[in-house]
Amino acid sequence: MNVSQRIIAVQSPIIPTVADLIRANPGTISLGLGMVYYGPPREALERVIGFDQHKYGPVYGTLELLDTIASKLRSENGIDVSKELRVVVTAGGNMAFVNALLAIADPGDEIILNGPYYFNHEMAVRMANCRPVIVPTDELYQLQPALISEAITPRTRAVVTISPNNPTGAVYPEADLREVNELCRARRIYHISDEAYEYFTYGGARHFSPGSLGGEHTISLFSLSKAYGFASWRIGYMTIAESLFESIKKIQDTILICPSLISQVAAVGAMNAGRAYCMDHLRTLSEMRESVREALEGVGDFCVVPPTDGTFYYLIKLDTDMHPLCLVERLVREYGVAAIPGNAFGMEGCSLRVSYGALNKETADEGMHRLVQGVRRILRRPGRFCHGIRRQPPLALPNGKTRG
Amino acid sequence: MNVSQRIIAVQSPIIPTVADLIRANPGTISLGLGMVYYGPPREALERVIGFDQHKYGPVYGTLELLDTIASKLRSENGIDVSKELRVVVTAGGNMAFVNALLAIADPGDEIILNGPYYFNHEMAVRMANCRPVIVPTDELYQLQPALISEAITPRTRAVVTISPNNPTGAVYPEADLREVNELCRARRIYHISDEAYEYFTYGGARHFSPGSLGGEHTISLFSLSKAYGFASWRIGYMTIAESLFESIKKIQDTILICPSLISQVAAVGAMNAGRAYCMDHLRTLSEMRESVREALEGVGDFCVVPPTDGTFYYLIKLDTDMHPLCLVERLVREYGVAAIPGNAFGMEGCSLRVSYGALNKETADEGMHRLVQGVRRILRRPGRFCHGIRRQPPLALPNGKTRG
Repeated sequence: MNVSQRIIAVQSPIIPTVADLIRANPGTISLGLGMVYYGPPREALERVIGFDQHKYGPVYGTLELLDTIASKLRSENGIDVSKELRVVVTAGGNMAFVNALLAIADPGDEIILNGPYYFNHEMAVRMANCRPVIVPTDELYQLQPALISEAITPRTRAVVTISPNNPTGAVYPEADLREVNELCRARRIYHISDEAYEYFTYGGARHFSPGSLGGEHTISLFSLSKAYGFASWRIGYMTIAESLFESIKKIQDTILICPSLISQVAAVGAMNAGRAYCMDHLRTLSEMRESVREALEGVGDFCVVPPTDGTFYYLIKLDTDMHPLCLVERLVREYGVAAIPGNAFGMEGCSLRVSYGALNKETADEGMHRLVQGVRRILRRPGRFCHGIRRQPPLALPNGKTRG
Repeated sequence: MNVSQRIIAVQSPIIPTVADLIRANPGTISLGLGMVYYGPPREALERVIGFDQHKYGPVYGTLELLDTIASKLRSENGIDVSKELRVVVTAGGNMAFVNALLAIADPGDEIILNGPYYFNHEMAVRMANCRPVIVPTDELYQLQPALISEAITPRTRAVVTISPNNPTGAVYPEADLREVNELCRARRIYHISDEAYEYFTYGGARHFSPGSLGGEHTISLFSLSKAYGFASWRIGYMTIAESLFESIKKIQDTILICPSLISQVAAVGAMNAGRAYCMDHLRTLSEMRESVREALEGVGDFCVVPPTDGTFYYLIKLDTDMHPLCLVERLVREYGVAAIPGNAFGMEGCSLRVSYGALNKETADEGMHRLVQGVRRILRRPGRFCHGIRRQPPLALPNGKTRG
């Protein structure tokens, strides 16, 4: 029995792969999780007591949650939800991206991702039979608008930006996002702006929403998963032009019917607690961030840690020929610590995404100790064998195009 | 800005369209809802008290729910979940269908649906750039295996059966399902068996699960939405061959990451209450079914009601040239009652899906009174105008193929 070609072209999800490794090696500390250490605010959990809405809700979300989102978008993002712009609640940010993609692109169309990319974006593009075109970011993981412009062809349907960025932590300056957005407007393609980590900026970095610039060409994606410790509840949302609303309704009706109502009820509570809830936790994350950075300096010369100002990730580059998944496998087996291999994000060479968001301070410190010790020892005595893991060649080529 | 061609090819979801009509006409009784009148069992609601699992869960569902499902499949469906067969929890039955489709079919491939079809299946097939091939059922809405066999081409990837059937209520005999399943096995294509309404049979009708026949070519889809009054919680599940497991994980990771954990926790409670919970309510539905049938006899000669033994639908055929959506619009505006126009299911001519599942006895009786009165009066004096609704041509052709 055959498996579809489109799914063969999609990389295996890396998170479950690493999770399997961790499960097989109890006691492993995971620096791989794309989650925060805290759960939802009290306001969210209290609202679901006595929940009694068991029938299907509207495809696009409950009016109560839509109103809550519209207020937040207006006051925090400068996005005016009026007749020309619609909000659609989704079962998480990934679904919002899939919705957008299916609504705007046909098989063979091209979607520009900035590399390193978020793996689920690249997977979604291939799943939709579109072609991911990877434009590299610079040494500091910042956008290169000139390269983006060059990569646009008649088949290009959208440029995707993620700021603050997963996996790099980069926060894109307003000027760069404006430039990309204007480029998309001029070339009549969509700008898909993923803002799942909008609250996670440090120091002087400031989040900017391209949706605030107006125009029907911007699709903005948001998630409650990180800000409100809401990962398991599966609630995200998107803003789209009115002209896409009918299409998005078709897609979400077919895939989901509606986002889970108990999660939507809780989401209203979370958003009522609001940004301040996340800000309280951001102070803790900021401290962890500093100690993770200090620890990474202990790895030595063969480790480059580009400085970034957002999320709870560092994407570190290691000077070795070792495949990053082999390195992760050895780190787990021999040192009891896991990170995400950079090839999952289209990185060439050996790199690791190190996440400290899901851990308490003590565990993160111990995890970093293991990581630094492990990387130093393994890379000074690199092993010659890599058991049990099929090598995946890197997907991004230096010319900014992808294979195949 | 463009909308994708694939989405233009997808029909607009009918349920929200009718819901809009109803909202604009307060007091309307809806005989259009594909839901039951009851909510989840106490066991489900009690389990979510103090829920505290806020991080992502496994892509394929929690071990606890998977175990619960495996026991149920073994004891009730005769499906043995062993190494060769996997269960994946989904955010509803629709998502299970989309997962299956993307995993087995490429653009241009054909999927055989039995007509009238479930609209979200047809929408999913088009969304995936595949071609729905509609094989008509007979006068009693029963399968025609010989026609299915004739419709198979080298591009065919699957035959989809739904039993008990939405929208017709037909329960397919074991012999017919065995024949279709054997046909699929012999032709090396998948048999996708949608069993969302497995508990909803009446009289002597008995549900049969083709998955019990073994073999990697059967994909079985299930849902908690109807049996446990679980529509808003979005939990379904699917059984697939081990050979499809990796593909399904890729797809669900990309679209959803994981089904909502609070819904999965509740689902375990619901399934512990078990089939008996649904059976208690089925007695009520059975009585309503009788009175709906009696009421429909009052419409007169120009109404054909094929007798069926399952679900909570009747798909009635009306002898008129009127477009069914125009009829529904007039029924809502003039008589305060709604049903689903049959063209959404690919029916030619004028037909209506009448659902009594979501209503209490009194409301259903009043709704049927309005429907019978409305249909009688409107069809004796058919209006010449249909305002505000764009006609959608029927999608199924008599030769069992679709347009385009």
